[in-house]
Amino acid sequence: MSMPDEKIFPHATGFAAKTVEDHQQPQDLVFYSGWVRVYKGSDYRACLTVSTQFCPFVQRAWITLEEKGIPYQYKEVNPYKKEKHFLAINPKGLVPAIEYQGKALYESLVLCEFLEDAYPSKSPHIYPSDPFTKAYVRIWVDHISKSIVSAFFRLIQAQEPDKQQEALESFNKSLAALAEKVKGPYFLGDEFSLVDIAIAPWVVRDYIATENRGYSREAVGAGWKDYCEVLEKRDSVLKTQSEKEHYAEIYGRYLRNEAQSEAAKATRAGRAIP
Amino acid sequence: MSMPDEKIFPHATGFAAKTVEDHQQPQDLVFYSGWVRVYKGSDYRACLTVSTQFCPFVQRAWITLEEKGIPYQYKEVNPYKKEKHFLAINPKGLVPAIEYQGKALYESLVLCEFLEDAYPSKSPHIYPSDPFTKAYVRIWVDHISKSIVSAFFRLIQAQEPDKQQEALESFNKSLAALAEKVKGPYFLGDEFSLVDIAIAPWVVRDYIATENRGYSREAVGAGWKDYCEVLEKRDSVLKTQSEKEHYAEIYGRYLRNEAQSEAAKATRAGRAIP
Repeated sequence: MSMPDEKIFPHATGFAAKTVEDHQQPQDLVFYSGWVRVYKGSDYRACLTVSTQFCPFVQRAWITLEEKGIPYQYKEVNPYKKEKHFLAINPKGLVPAIEYQGKALYESLVLCEFLEDAYPSKSPHIYPSDPFTKAYVRIWVDHISKSIVSAFFRLIQAQEPDKQQEALESFNKSLAALAEKVKGPYFLGDEFSLVDIAIAPWVVRDYIATENRGYSREAVGAGWKDYCEVLEKRDSVLKTQSEKEHYAEIYGRYLRNEAQSEAAKATRAGRAIP
Repeated sequence: MSMPDEKIFPHATGFAAKTVEDHQQPQDLVFYSGWVRVYKGSDYRACLTVSTQFCPFVQRAWITLEEKGIPYQYKEVNPYKKEKHFLAINPKGLVPAIEYQGKALYESLVLCEFLEDAYPSKSPHIYPSDPFTKAYVRIWVDHISKSIVSAFFRLIQAQEPDKQQEALESFNKSLAALAEKVKGPYFLGDEFSLVDIAIAPWVVRDYIATENRGYSREAVGAGWKDYCEVLEKRDSVLKTQSEKEHYAEIYGRYLRNEAQSEAAKATRAGRAIP
């Protein structure tokens, strides 16, 4: 059977390929990324092109690993042909996932929090130490997950002009609500936090909406463009993404509403993104 | 204008009324519950009947307050006529909410985590200390929010028999996935955790689905019934709920798909529950 990702450009580009190269040695912590192309060659970097861009959720956990300088081994999972070992520790086969002492964890934000808890000496910390501000960060991370991310997928998957317009308004509104709270340069001010990590993968992918759905950072207002430019220049963000010119094939599926990721299927069905 | 909750039974019953009575004195922490009936008298307990049962999200935070024995003042908010002070600190007017040192926090799970962080000496702790098990708890809390809670609302709001059947299967499946992981008596075994807090309000309301949608705890299998019976007997759960015989009016709105809560509206629109 022909795999839906067969035509993907077969080589990772940009900084991400280098980051993957630097994380091939066995470590106590294994970071599972996905998903991968069914490729004929043996170049692992072929996978990265897909996993980096296709899965912004993977990038969240990856940013956290890079921010903290935690030693990890990077591995890809082919969702159409999952390895026995991976399924044994992670029966649902979800990525991103982390294998730690022979057991697996998944869910992007759970992984970010786990990395914070399991490596308490590694900075920067994704949460401020004050309980109230920590809860405030959680509220805005929740806003990103429930409002911004779902609006992004609705926007790029919408086919009819009126639905695209409605989704664009919803996306802009949810971004503006966050933008109003950004102290600058980061969400909390000088301190980098989980809010920045949670939104960054969508900031670096927003050109899809700009090129195809009439979105502009300027239209969001309230310093949104400045914040986006700060995030996309952050080292950990740069190190976990490829160059965008090769991404057209993957995003084309979303733009035609043919993508088969869990996020795409949930969006199509009018359900919460799992 | 007639309020949609005008016919609600005007007196709280059960243990919750006593719990409210015990928490009227000013404290550093104010717990805002909602929503309230527009009542003609001045009996604050009139509100509780609505807030306790109508909002399972409120109950999560309330259980956590009671579990930890944190001093708090209980206040209700009328969503149709929000007080100036409440809107000043919490512009969206969401409940449950907590006012702490003049600032507000909301979102039920954020509140539970905040109470854990802000009162580190108060036990029981809602998370185990081991980072891996803590992340495991987060994964299952996430499952409750994304799968179980959304399936519950779809089930009780579904009108057509085929949609009710589909929602019942989805509800049972999501409960069974959790049931398989319950060590007993609590999710983690002897240790009470946020998983138990997050699911308890839906366990004590599941009779609505039993009486109206053909749901049974037995059909879920894998010890689900035993776990439910443990949860509904927990002191903090009992102390934060009223007797169920007066709830028919409120749940009737859900069963007719006429409820106007944010959860009900999101479910009707095929969106994630905010």
